[in-house]
Amino acid sequence: MVGGGQLARMTQPAAVALGVRLAVLAADAGESAAQVVREPVVADEKALEDLTSFAKSCDVLTFDHEHVPPAHLKALEAAGVVVRPGTNALLHAQDKGAMRERLSAMGIACPRYRVVADPGEVARFVVEHGGHAVLKTTRGGYDGKGVWLIDTDTAPEVVAEPFRAGVPVLAEERVNYARELSAVVARSPHGQAVAYPVVESVQKAGICVEVVAPAPGMPSERAVEAQRTALRIAAELGVVGVLAVEMFETTEGELLVNELAMRPHNSGHWSIDGAVTSQFENHLRAVLDLPLGSPDARAPYTVMVNILGGDLPDVYPAYRHVMARDSGLKVHWYGKAVRPGRKVGHVTAYGDDLASLRERAWHAADYIRGDIDE
Amino acid sequence: MVGGGQLARMTQPAAVALGVRLAVLAADAGESAAQVVREPVVADEKALEDLTSFAKSCDVLTFDHEHVPPAHLKALEAAGVVVRPGTNALLHAQDKGAMRERLSAMGIACPRYRVVADPGEVARFVVEHGGHAVLKTTRGGYDGKGVWLIDTDTAPEVVAEPFRAGVPVLAEERVNYARELSAVVARSPHGQAVAYPVVESVQKAGICVEVVAPAPGMPSERAVEAQRTALRIAAELGVVGVLAVEMFETTEGELLVNELAMRPHNSGHWSIDGAVTSQFENHLRAVLDLPLGSPDARAPYTVMVNILGGDLPDVYPAYRHVMARDSGLKVHWYGKAVRPGRKVGHVTAYGDDLASLRERAWHAADYIRGDIDE
Repeated sequence: MVGGGQLARMTQPAAVALGVRLAVLAADAGESAAQVVREPVVADEKALEDLTSFAKSCDVLTFDHEHVPPAHLKALEAAGVVVRPGTNALLHAQDKGAMRERLSAMGIACPRYRVVADPGEVARFVVEHGGHAVLKTTRGGYDGKGVWLIDTDTAPEVVAEPFRAGVPVLAEERVNYARELSAVVARSPHGQAVAYPVVESVQKAGICVEVVAPAPGMPSERAVEAQRTALRIAAELGVVGVLAVEMFETTEGELLVNELAMRPHNSGHWSIDGAVTSQFENHLRAVLDLPLGSPDARAPYTVMVNILGGDLPDVYPAYRHVMARDSGLKVHWYGKAVRPGRKVGHVTAYGDDLASLRERAWHAADYIRGDIDE
Repeated sequence: MVGGGQLARMTQPAAVALGVRLAVLAADAGESAAQVVREPVVADEKALEDLTSFAKSCDVLTFDHEHVPPAHLKALEAAGVVVRPGTNALLHAQDKGAMRERLSAMGIACPRYRVVADPGEVARFVVEHGGHAVLKTTRGGYDGKGVWLIDTDTAPEVVAEPFRAGVPVLAEERVNYARELSAVVARSPHGQAVAYPVVESVQKAGICVEVVAPAPGMPSERAVEAQRTALRIAAELGVVGVLAVEMFETTEGELLVNELAMRPHNSGHWSIDGAVTSQFENHLRAVLDLPLGSPDARAPYTVMVNILGGDLPDVYPAYRHVMARDSGLKVHWYGKAVRPGRKVGHVTAYGDDLASLRERAWHAADYIRGDIDE
């Protein structure tokens, strides 16, 4: 797995159970995943020779994130390395412009969009779409980085900002959505696929903060529609591994695809404690071409809340407190230094009573962050 | 954790989630747990200097097995190392003679026993106990090793065998039991304790092959009695960490304590998939003096069946087959070379219908072993 973040870290327990050796290429020996695997490789994921050398020790190359340069991945594939998901599929998670074009060609509902070349084109797009737009760099964004909300009053220097990265810019209509959903599926090389229950995800400042599985009050036909869309994207793009399809659910009940991720995704963390097979285990099974495990939920509801760092770097007393307060809460810690706003872990609660599960999970996250003190 | 076996290996997923660094002292870099932790220490667990050096890198020293010499543990404690469970408690899992004496002094029902000095004393014991006895070396036995079934007809060389190890020998009455049970508890340094549901365990040739949680058809008062006995032993012996109390349930419904283990135990493996908090997580929480997690079962029944090696060293096709046949089965692989009779993994199935769960779990174990081919 290329990348030493928490996604690679959370893949290790699945690898331990399956008897799979998880090798990790990390930028730093102290990274989240590097702490928990045998002999992590500290190397530069942007350097082809480092990737080539790492790939020699592996049967299959897969990813903790989308930031490996596509040209390197193509070169690795050409040299015979088994890259999963493959370069052609992965491009649609790396490049939002390519993703929009492909999904539109497939007839999948998306926000209206245009790849724009300069602030002048942005201004025209804004006028044509009700006075608002969302600008996104087509490559390199994550967790709200690389996204700008624009309207007719936005200062010119802000409108100019997205163009500074030197990559194409995508303008999208501002969708009036009721909530955000995510459909996570896993697909193996010979085409077996499983779909997890569709979840509701809540973002704050572009960062996922809460996931409820399954999405409450969702008509089953609409959930099936979301799963079918995700399975269809996985099949048509030839995705191998986990694919997360983030969607907007509009007030009229329409589903519009927002983003794709081709790796275990924050909206699937609930599955570690809440599903028969976690997304991490199914990602491994898929990229290794093993039969996939059941994605079924184990409880009527599972709530996952991310723990974001607060102002106090030493969270150990709070960590103990939340465990003492709630012996049924599942705490997941990423081994990262605490910094304000940084994802340092998550908590999961499962059971029948959604309101109580949400209260329990949020209490723990808020307490660790230092927002409440009892 | 001293010891690189599957118990240390299965502790790693719990450590990953808790954000705890699990260090492992292994005899060989290829051992089960050594494969899955950062920088395992390859050293001799029988050498005090190796243990001392390893302990310097750890906050707490705990164990994958009971084979570290008690004198070394005393020396480490004297040098200020935090050893959990402590030497005085652990002695009762290391020395069956000490265990029997202590439990008898506590008034806990056990098989009738005597520490015997020679084959002559064995012969007297056999005559006094209905013509049968079980002989055990007081130290060093595991998985049926160090145990002999004796009766009046047993050949003298067999009766002499247990004495060859040079450690005291325990003679016990042959108990006419209906089944074997195990009560697993975890206890932290300041005395918090949790008790897992009492399970039924099935042994074959001294090796645990199946565990059903909870023990089917067990009157709740008897289950509570077993849990109370285990909690009382943990408290009186000052155990820190997981304590497994193996018991015989006689046809009259009496519970007799057979063995103690002070570490995660085969009879607790079901808890990884079947309980809110696994025995491995609670062992870590206990030895680190963190609040303990709920030991509650997540399903009406959980069945664990050990995978023992068969004659075919390459089990990969069978491994794939059982995953393809049953997407709800949880497969745990220990990363060990397959040898006939060796524990190389286990499978877990959970749900409502005990007969079907047993069929599913046994099918997988039998198929991987090569005993069945469809």
